[in-house]
Amino acid sequence: MKILVAQRNPVVGDIDGNTAQVLESMEEARKKGVDLVMFGELTLCGYPPEDLVYHHSFLDSMEIHLERIVKASKGLTVIVGLIRRNINAGEKHLLNSAAVIHDGSLLGFQDKWLLPTYDVFEERRYFEPGKDTRIWEIGGKRIGLIICEDIWQHAGYVGYTRYERDPVLALVEHSPDILLNISASPYQFQKPDVRVNVCAKAAKTLGCPVVMCCQVGANGQIIFDGYSVYVNKKGELCQLGKGFAEDAMVIDLEAPSCPVPFEYNAMTNLLQALQLGVKDYFVKCGFSKACLGLSGGIDSALVAYIATRALGPENVLGISMPSCYSTEACQSDAKTLAKNLGIQFKEIPIGEPFDTLRHLLEPHFEGKEPDITEENLQARIRGIILMAMSNKHGYIVLSTGNKSELALGYSTLYGDTCGGLGVIGDVTKTRVYDLCRHINKIENKEMILNSIIDRPPSAELRPDQIDLDSLPEYGVIDNVLEGYVENYLSIDEIAEKYHIPQEQVLELIQKIHAAEYKRRQGPPILRVSKKSFGIGRRYPIVQKWL
Amino acid sequence: MKILVAQRNPVVGDIDGNTAQVLESMEEARKKGVDLVMFGELTLCGYPPEDLVYHHSFLDSMEIHLERIVKASKGLTVIVGLIRRNINAGEKHLLNSAAVIHDGSLLGFQDKWLLPTYDVFEERRYFEPGKDTRIWEIGGKRIGLIICEDIWQHAGYVGYTRYERDPVLALVEHSPDILLNISASPYQFQKPDVRVNVCAKAAKTLGCPVVMCCQVGANGQIIFDGYSVYVNKKGELCQLGKGFAEDAMVIDLEAPSCPVPFEYNAMTNLLQALQLGVKDYFVKCGFSKACLGLSGGIDSALVAYIATRALGPENVLGISMPSCYSTEACQSDAKTLAKNLGIQFKEIPIGEPFDTLRHLLEPHFEGKEPDITEENLQARIRGIILMAMSNKHGYIVLSTGNKSELALGYSTLYGDTCGGLGVIGDVTKTRVYDLCRHINKIENKEMILNSIIDRPPSAELRPDQIDLDSLPEYGVIDNVLEGYVENYLSIDEIAEKYHIPQEQVLELIQKIHAAEYKRRQGPPILRVSKKSFGIGRRYPIVQKWL
Repeated sequence: MKILVAQRNPVVGDIDGNTAQVLESMEEARKKGVDLVMFGELTLCGYPPEDLVYHHSFLDSMEIHLERIVKASKGLTVIVGLIRRNINAGEKHLLNSAAVIHDGSLLGFQDKWLLPTYDVFEERRYFEPGKDTRIWEIGGKRIGLIICEDIWQHAGYVGYTRYERDPVLALVEHSPDILLNISASPYQFQKPDVRVNVCAKAAKTLGCPVVMCCQVGANGQIIFDGYSVYVNKKGELCQLGKGFAEDAMVIDLEAPSCPVPFEYNAMTNLLQALQLGVKDYFVKCGFSKACLGLSGGIDSALVAYIATRALGPENVLGISMPSCYSTEACQSDAKTLAKNLGIQFKEIPIGEPFDTLRHLLEPHFEGKEPDITEENLQARIRGIILMAMSNKHGYIVLSTGNKSELALGYSTLYGDTCGGLGVIGDVTKTRVYDLCRHINKIENKEMILNSIIDRPPSAELRPDQIDLDSLPEYGVIDNVLEGYVENYLSIDEIAEKYHIPQEQVLELIQKIHAAEYKRRQGPPILRVSKKSFGIGRRYPIVQKWL
Repeated sequence: MKILVAQRNPVVGDIDGNTAQVLESMEEARKKGVDLVMFGELTLCGYPPEDLVYHHSFLDSMEIHLERIVKASKGLTVIVGLIRRNINAGEKHLLNSAAVIHDGSLLGFQDKWLLPTYDVFEERRYFEPGKDTRIWEIGGKRIGLIICEDIWQHAGYVGYTRYERDPVLALVEHSPDILLNISASPYQFQKPDVRVNVCAKAAKTLGCPVVMCCQVGANGQIIFDGYSVYVNKKGELCQLGKGFAEDAMVIDLEAPSCPVPFEYNAMTNLLQALQLGVKDYFVKCGFSKACLGLSGGIDSALVAYIATRALGPENVLGISMPSCYSTEACQSDAKTLAKNLGIQFKEIPIGEPFDTLRHLLEPHFEGKEPDITEENLQARIRGIILMAMSNKHGYIVLSTGNKSELALGYSTLYGDTCGGLGVIGDVTKTRVYDLCRHINKIENKEMILNSIIDRPPSAELRPDQIDLDSLPEYGVIDNVLEGYVENYLSIDEIAEKYHIPQEQVLELIQKIHAAEYKRRQGPPILRVSKKSFGIGRRYPIVQKWL
């Protein structure tokens, strides 16, 4: 039996377009003499469809498009993920399902048993857990079929949940010849190899090969990295789909299955994830051009690089918006960076509007001393300029705030937080530095100027300001972030683990809490860590914990 | 037996403060010679605590504070809602529970069976459903105890869910003398009487009285209206807690239970809800002063009124920010309104910064004609001014956008969407008018000027602009909103139900979809309808449905 693993990039809600992808891959399967073609989880509507599933017309559309696929399946077996109505008892009206289609007939459905409801996943909001398992006897093979989370539980890699059933173990008595898993498994830093381990574990338990077909592409804040997996019955990795790109991997179950190594560079991976996140946001929304504020600082430098690689230099505009507090060095670095990247560059100084607004507001400031107000004014004027360029020319503004800044609210709401997409909002400052150094390594030149990397970070909103005036070292901040936001440790635990004084831990946590209202109004953030400040984190704005 | 229904207003996360409320009500119960005192759902941590529950220290704190309550319970029975760890099997590690305490001892817990996971509720994210039910024999009474949703299912009032178990029916065989329900049931327009019906249904089924203790107060976007309920065994309403305020209702089960009427005015109720939403946002965040842009239009007039009633006129500042497109009539109305309300008033014209910015940007606009860019510039300058006043003086900016505008994106992101709280973001334009007329009726004077109510709505961002230039009648918009956003109807169904041409329905739905990105970056919205654009609605920004 030959299997085509159709690692596709569906668009959420685009049932018609996603069906076209399915039909195209079926055609390719025929050309390649393949018997079975499999797609990712919820391929027909894209993952995650969220509350779109409450529209009856949305479900009807999936049924109609499934019929088209069935009709087109002559001579093929097709496994495709979709949502179907739950006509039996159960709390929820829907099932997260895989349709099994063979040679013009719909053989039936396999429903997902384990419904992740934590972090970015909300499947219990919509779906009823599947209850049955079975073997699909097709082409002389006994095929077991499960969906995404169904395979993770067995290897112990699930979050905040201890499922009572194990779909892999449930298949043991059925002795499958092969286990297929259709997935939509989000990227996170250093995760791709975990996915291989998960497949290997199931292969060893069942004593059969495992094929996992993964969704690829970014849908909003969630990035899917692809890397579909084929492991043999010993649990050895034999084939791997491309990372961060569509792929059509053909597996010949009769051919000898030779182990291949799985090597990837975590930093390159992270860059690819961010680039794909930007690219798909633009492509799927129908945009092409991006602009961003280029300050000469490291955050905007990194975002400019990512945008350039994702959209092409001709589609990126960097705007330097110096004030009287901007240093010559930063302005010159911004210009040089733009040149290095080959992007468009404009300089629009903010001195005049800053003066006009200060003058206008002076009588209403009642003789109070300059403070954070004047700093925010500058950042907001820059936001206005970027948005005006967006409105007039169709650029989408990219926001350049990093995770450490967002954590502490070291940003101006409606100022530097402006934008359609927060490109590095889930990348800590520490990792921003690592990424920039990594870029210069893989580009084999000083693409991001060393002077940008080496300069002490500064918002340049008052004379001689540096971040260290208001914040602890970023290393300390990022440790507290890891401890509190990613792992929910207590003050004591964080203080002990990272050797930070308790009072400093508490102070930083209180800052994290206090900045919740700013984050709530920020742009969507590309999620690349275990716990992003964007999707997947619910934190009350009005609360008094700690 | 005498019961004190402690209808309290807990703060999310403030376990210490909430425990103090509990101890205070226990003291009051003693003074009043009451036997049993009951509190709302999750009283110890406030509802909804969201991801705070992932912190072990948060759970530990609840355990410690429960001990304090147990120790203080001499001579009393206390029923208090809290979260406890699930030490038995089950998917989730936590239980939404009621502790039953009697005379210095913890008798045990009743866990919530039915876990709402739709709209604003996410209980399956955290909790394992309860499995057992029992009778608590205390003071010679057989007491049945269930939690919030547990009682709603029986009356058929649940959303998107069909639970397989019915906690009310499960109690039938136990023949309780009384049923207690502890709740955190969010306000929505015209909902309070439904709650009485739900209790009546359970009373009739069990043939015993029912007491429902409700949380009151706003926690972020969700407003709890109180109105705790006591119905006799015939299902007749006998006592009702206050709406939108704390209350300590004493019920004497031995006294004759006489039916009382439940009359409320839906519009007055809505106003009270919005006022409580504003008040609690400020009180619980530690703020006192609000400012808002007063345009002379109806939306800002309504928000100014609500803020005045919630915070006191001395704490509200209205700022008129006229441009060259502002009419004399609007400016004068804004001033008169401020006078009517007794609030502070300032005028800060935006002509100069608008000119400066236009001049600055001219060379970068490449000869393009004025368009939406210049309109947005004005709105954003106003946003900057409001935020500067906020930064300098500590005002919280109130956003004045209504639900109809938010639906269609008829607003400027980072401009008029600025603010800490979207006061009327869940109130349609049609209802904004109704509310303003209602205010003048209950105030018995022209508090909101008739000229404001009668003037055709306009953003005043270009000469002689009115909303009707860009939008259909608000009646049409609000029908599509009700059909599509609240009830998930299809284009055909909406067209037929409201007699709107199909093309117009499609066009409006596409506008609703296209504005998703703006809404995502707006301030939190006080939820008062069945389906708010704020909390409780998950809609992808990047999607191609319709």
